[in-house]
Parts: sequence; C-alpha cells; structure tokens
Amino acid sequence: MDERPPEISGSLLTIGDEILLGDILNGNARHIALELRNRGFRLDRMITVGDREEDIVSSLVLCLADARFIIVTGGLGPTDDDRTNAAVSRAFDRPLVADEAYVGRLKERLAERGQAWSNEVAKMAELPAGAVKIGLDMAGFFIDHGNVPCYFLPGVPGEMKFLLAEVVIPDLARRFPLRGAYLKEVVRVQGMVESEVNRRLRDLDCRRIGVEIGYLPQGSENWVTLFAVAASEEECRTRIEKVREEVVARLGEKHISGRNDECLEKVVGERLRERGWRMAAAESCTGGLLSTRLTSIAGSSDYFDRAFITYSNQAKQDHLGVSEEMLRVHGAVSEPVALAMAEGACRGARVEVALGITGIAGPAGGSAEKPVGTVCIACVTPKEKRVEKHRFEGVRESIRQSAAQAALLLLWRVLTDDSNLHCR
Amino acid sequence: MDERPPEISGSLLTIGDEILLGDILNGNARHIALELRNRGFRLDRMITVGDREEDIVSSLVLCLADARFIIVTGGLGPTDDDRTNAAVSRAFDRPLVADEAYVGRLKERLAERGQAWSNEVAKMAELPAGAVKIGLDMAGFFIDHGNVPCYFLPGVPGEMKFLLAEVVIPDLARRFPLRGAYLKEVVRVQGMVESEVNRRLRDLDCRRIGVEIGYLPQGSENWVTLFAVAASEEECRTRIEKVREEVVARLGEKHISGRNDECLEKVVGERLRERGWRMAAAESCTGGLLSTRLTSIAGSSDYFDRAFITYSNQAKQDHLGVSEEMLRVHGAVSEPVALAMAEGACRGARVEVALGITGIAGPAGGSAEKPVGTVCIACVTPKEKRVEKHRFEGVRESIRQSAAQAALLLLWRVLTDDSNLHCR
Repeated sequence: MDERPPEISGSLLTIGDEILLGDILNGNARHIALELRNRGFRLDRMITVGDREEDIVSSLVLCLADARFIIVTGGLGPTDDDRTNAAVSRAFDRPLVADEAYVGRLKERLAERGQAWSNEVAKMAELPAGAVKIGLDMAGFFIDHGNVPCYFLPGVPGEMKFLLAEVVIPDLARRFPLRGAYLKEVVRVQGMVESEVNRRLRDLDCRRIGVEIGYLPQGSENWVTLFAVAASEEECRTRIEKVREEVVARLGEKHISGRNDECLEKVVGERLRERGWRMAAAESCTGGLLSTRLTSIAGSSDYFDRAFITYSNQAKQDHLGVSEEMLRVHGAVSEPVALAMAEGACRGARVEVALGITGIAGPAGGSAEKPVGTVCIACVTPKEKRVEKHRFEGVRESIRQSAAQAALLLLWRVLTDDSNLHCR
Repeated sequence: MDERPPEISGSLLTIGDEILLGDILNGNARHIALELRNRGFRLDRMITVGDREEDIVSSLVLCLADARFIIVTGGLGPTDDDRTNAAVSRAFDRPLVADEAYVGRLKERLAERGQAWSNEVAKMAELPAGAVKIGLDMAGFFIDHGNVPCYFLPGVPGEMKFLLAEVVIPDLARRFPLRGAYLKEVVRVQGMVESEVNRRLRDLDCRRIGVEIGYLPQGSENWVTLFAVAASEEECRTRIEKVREEVVARLGEKHISGRNDECLEKVVGERLRERGWRMAAAESCTGGLLSTRLTSIAGSSDYFDRAFITYSNQAKQDHLGVSEEMLRVHGAVSEPVALAMAEGACRGARVEVALGITGIAGPAGGSAEKPVGTVCIACVTPKEKRVEKHRFEGVRESIRQSAAQAALLLLWRVLTDDSNLHCR
C-alpha cells in the first residue's frame, strides 16, 4: 500500500532582517510552502538570514548539497543592503554580468518617473552569468545550476506571489512531471480535550494505509490532520477517506463539527439555512466579535439579521428589555441577564434564534465572586433555552475569543441535537 | 557617534513538519526573536527542517561555524519522529547517555498516570554526553559546546516560552554581560502612500546618528520603523528621539497617528476620553468588526456605549430610523443611508459621536453602479457631519477590514481637526 511516488523536495531561503528581528512572521515562507504542496512539491528546509553576504553564501552552499530546487526571496533591490546577486555569484562561482535587456527596461522606467540612472540601479541589473531574467517590471531571475533550478524572487509579497504562480510553479511542474500528489484534510473536533483525542486515536495504524496523522490544538477546537502522499490526488483522497471514517467512529460523530475550512460559523449558518431560521445576537464583553465571525461567511445575510452590541447597561435596557431590577439583583454578568439578552434579541429582531453573551473580559471589573474571565452565554431557539456560565483564562483578547467560540459551540450543539432536528 | 557595543548574535533551529508544509506560521521563531532582541541579543539565522536526522545534523554543523549561541526547538518527544537527541549526538560528536535523574522523573510521571515504562520514553532520557537537563516536567536540555551555549527546547509554545524566559535568557545574560542594548520604535503614518513616505525620508541620514530606518506597509497604514543599537537603552532612546523628530517634521504631524502599539482604536479612545464624549456605531457590511476593534481596548466602556449591527434593512429601520423611502431611493449602500445610520445611532444611544458603515463586502451583491467593495462611511459629532464613499479592492475579508480601518481613520481625522479641538 505504501509505494510512494518520488518526492521532489527543495529548499527555501528568505532574506530579510524584519523576520530575524521578530517584527513580522514569515508569511512569504508559509505561502510558498502551501502553494508548492498543493502542486505536489515539498520543502525540506527553510532558512532565513539577514543582509550579510557571508550568511547568504553559506546558506546557498548548504542548500545546493541536497535540494532538488531552490527558491530565494528578497535582497534583490538597489540598496547596499541587497546582497543576493553578489552572494549568488560567490556561492555558484558565476561572475556578475550586466543584463543589457534589463538595463534597458530599468532605464525606461526611471525615465518615466523623471529619475536619473545611478550606480545603485545598475547593480540590480548585474546578474550572475547564465541567469535568465524573470518578471518584467520587478526584480527576479532564474539559474539552472547543474540541473538544480534556482529561482530568485523579490521579497515584496505581491510580486513574489505573482512570480511563484506564473513562473516558478509552472516551470517546476514541467521539470518534474513524475511527482506524487499530496493531500491534506483537517477534521475539526469539538468538546474533547487533546489528550483524550490522542488516547482514542493512538493505536490507529494509518501509516499502513499511507496516511500521516497529526494533532493541532486550535483554541478550544482540536484539529486532527490527515496527510496523504500517493501517485494521484484520487488515490490520496481514497486513503484519507478510509482513515477519516475510522477517526470519526472512534471520536464519535457528535464531536466532529466539520472538515477543512468548515469552521463553526459556517456550519452553524448551514444548519440555520436548512431550517429556514434567522438569528440575532446580543453581545456585551465580546463587543461584536461573535457577529464579526458569523458575518464573515459569504451569504450570511440569508440567516443573520442583526446584533445588539449592548456595552452599557442602559443599552441592555433600551434594546433588549433587560430590567433595571434584574441588573441590580443579579448583576450584568449573570445567567439570567444572558438569557434575557438572548430573549430580547429574538423579540427585537423578530427571529427564531438568538445568542446572548455577557462577561468580564478584564483587566479591570473582576471581583472575588465574579473574577475576570467569567462569561455567561445563552442560546434561545423556538424549541429550547440554554444558558451556560464559563470561566475563561488568559488576557482580555483571549477571553473575548474564547467567549465568542463558546457561543458558536453552544449554538452548534443546540442546532445539532436530535431534539431540534427537522423540527420545522 | 556610531561606536556600537559588541553584537551577540546566534542561530535558531526550529524542527517541525507543520511549518515546512505551510500548515502554520513559525510563531515560535518570532517569539524567540522578539524576546532576544528585547534583551539585547540578535538572531542572525533561522533554519526550519523536518524530522530527518540528516537535515538536523547539517543545520547544526552550519550554525556551529559562527553562532555565539544556538537555540533549537522541537523534536524532543518520545516518538520515532523525534530525532533531535540523535542528531545532536552526531553533530556534536557526543554519545547518547541515559540521564538517570530524568529517567527517575519520567518513571514517576508515568506511574502517576498508570502508564508503563517503554523504550520510546527511555529514548527521551538519552541525552548527549555533557548535556544538562533543563525544565522539570518537560523535555529540554543544555550543552556548553566549546563555549557556545546550546539550548534545546520543546516545540510546544507554552513550554518553549517558559524555558526561554526562565532559563535561556537569564543564562545568556549571565554569559554575555557586555552586550549592547537594542530599541525599536514604530511611527504610524496615516493618509500617505508608501512611495511618498519614502520620497520624503529618502535622504534622511540616520545611520550617522546610529539609527536604522525601515518601511512596513500595514494595510492602509504605513509604518516607519526606527531601530537603534547602542551601549544603553537610554542612549538608544536619545538617538531614536532625534530621528523621530525629523521624521515627524518631514511627514507632517497630521499624518502621524501614534507610536508603537498606539493603534487607531486606542488613540481615538484617548481623544474621546479627553473630550468626555461617548460614542456608538452602526455597522452593516463590517458586521461588528469596527466595534470589535474599538472594544478591544481595555477601559473602552468609558467611551463606547453600544453598537447596532443592522445587517438587514428592517434592522436599519427599526433601530436607526432609516426610512423605507431613503432605502428605496438611494439604496442601502449610499452616502445618505450611511449618514442616517450614524445619526440614528447617535440619537438611539444618546451619545455625542457615532460612525455609520454600509457597503458591499461581496462576493455577491455588486452591480455595475455599485460594485463589490463600495462602502459608505459617515461620522457625526456635535460639531460636524462627514460622509465618504470608498471603493476597496480584494476579497470579502479584506474589504471588511479596509472598511473598519477607514471608519477609524475618519473618526481619528474628525477628532484631530483643529476645529474640533477643545470644543468642549
């Protein structure tokens, strides 16, 4: 079962101080990795270095030792900090030569902007001998070095993405037609801690079927990833389906909310649409985060009617009919108020379903009885009313995110329960 | 001016297939880079490889050639995929030896859970000769290899962060007391395209002062980064202040919204608080995103009262008093409706300031006259009313984000204008 097609794996070198300084995440690297994988290629190594020529040279030498292809991003501009061309010249032992066609194009562009030709710009057009310019109005070149295709791309994400899609991947696909297909699937698990997911799947022998299994906790969700490499995408799909069936059986269908990009807000929307129900939300501590997630789904206006972000107590009274007495007796963060908020939203919006959230996101506002992180969440449908009290850990932003996720999870559970199925 | 203290720079090796496959961004690497920089250390190289022993060995050998310190994360667990210990043994030429104290602790932990001792667990406790175990209930060890301190940390973010803060950084600080201080500042520029920012700052000679300048476009904001290395943090601060003054003078004060973490929602909140004004929002296409950003600031309940997420036309009529006729004549996405929404929110919440947003986030709902991306935004204060029509590019999510950002920018401008200053 495990005859794998040849793996074509390469190295990626990203050049940029911002990543080394921690200013930004390496989004370019992730984009390149994903795009390559979707076309059946693999990265075995990612290196990030700054603009020191020595570091670029040693990295290129390391990659040349075993990579089937090399992609380099960044360091192609006109400034002193842009050392890629010089480093490639040294690492590949190819002298720098002015690319006359590129010189001409750069001169034209400068003329259009009324700028003068300079030594700095001239440097951009000095490419290692044998290099082929790629990309018309952006930096970038290609070298076939001893049968290892090497692509040098700009670090600007838009330009890099363009050349990757238009030049690099088509060229790689042409050079390596006999590669395997990769396929990956995420199974989204709800309401089960990671160690329990692990325990139930531990002895699942999926390598035999040619599928790698992985675990990725995502906030309160746990993702089980299934990854297959095979001769064709269809074969990958068949293998993954076989393993997925077993995973779902072991974890229990009621813990699986969806696959891949089927996030809770999407699945919940589909359930609402099936029933022809419309919904509203009443949010306090989450300040709109729940509604933002629900409306992030294209077409959500089919079932999402409105939300009341009632940050002040007065707003809770004005729009949701929460009584002053209830606020005084139970406090704004209480199960009765959460329920009254959901009921008020249902009434005010004249819809079937509503969620209510009230809590203390902190850092201020906590007490011994109701510490920061206390959040009450209610869900109302034509069939039932549910209210929950949570105590979330973490800073303000993670409490807000946990609360929005818990509200979606509550709604998903309510809509999934058999008692609610086909009730309309 | 440019006497730099010695730079202590090291290498980071992260081991993990999820990053190479593009499943996740390398958040560990960014965290480590930031924490090191804040303590005056620098990373010169980041490498990511998978679980192939050969790749780990060659990466370690490369790092050993020039790094003053090495940090490795991942690959320390009990499974077959965890190859770090074996690779270190080969790269450093140190045989694997069972760490008896670690064996004892692992046995205790297994016993607590009622689990049996296994060869796999035994493998975890076989450390390269000379290694010192770090971290009590987690994987991790340290080797002083020819005066290069090498730290091996778990890949689990929580455990990695703990050991970095508790062990790695204190140990590095003790070993390298004579290092320079680093300081970085972000200047947030509004309403000026990147090329213009560049043009105005191009000939600013800040290297002379010992400050590096960088440019980072962040959606509709442009960030100018000022980065100083000097003997002390005070000296860094002095240098950065000198350059910042010049940057602000060249770009114009009205284009600078804040520094570092002073995002628009924070600055806007401070301005509202100064004036004693409270605000509300009426959102349609952004679905709560604007309110989420405004309420992400701790203490925002001082000035943020409520929001109306009026996704349906009926909701706009019910809560904001937008007339059916206005919706029919101008359409829901129009400047008059945006203005009526803001006015209705002001009235309904009995507050001084309100924003109204209505637009087409797509992918459906566009027309020739009002294509996807059309967004109208209004701002109402006691002094004036402003309404703008935008046409944003991109997919649904980026249109929503651009719209929320534009609304905050409009509010910031209105609150910044002299006509509005001290008007209360």
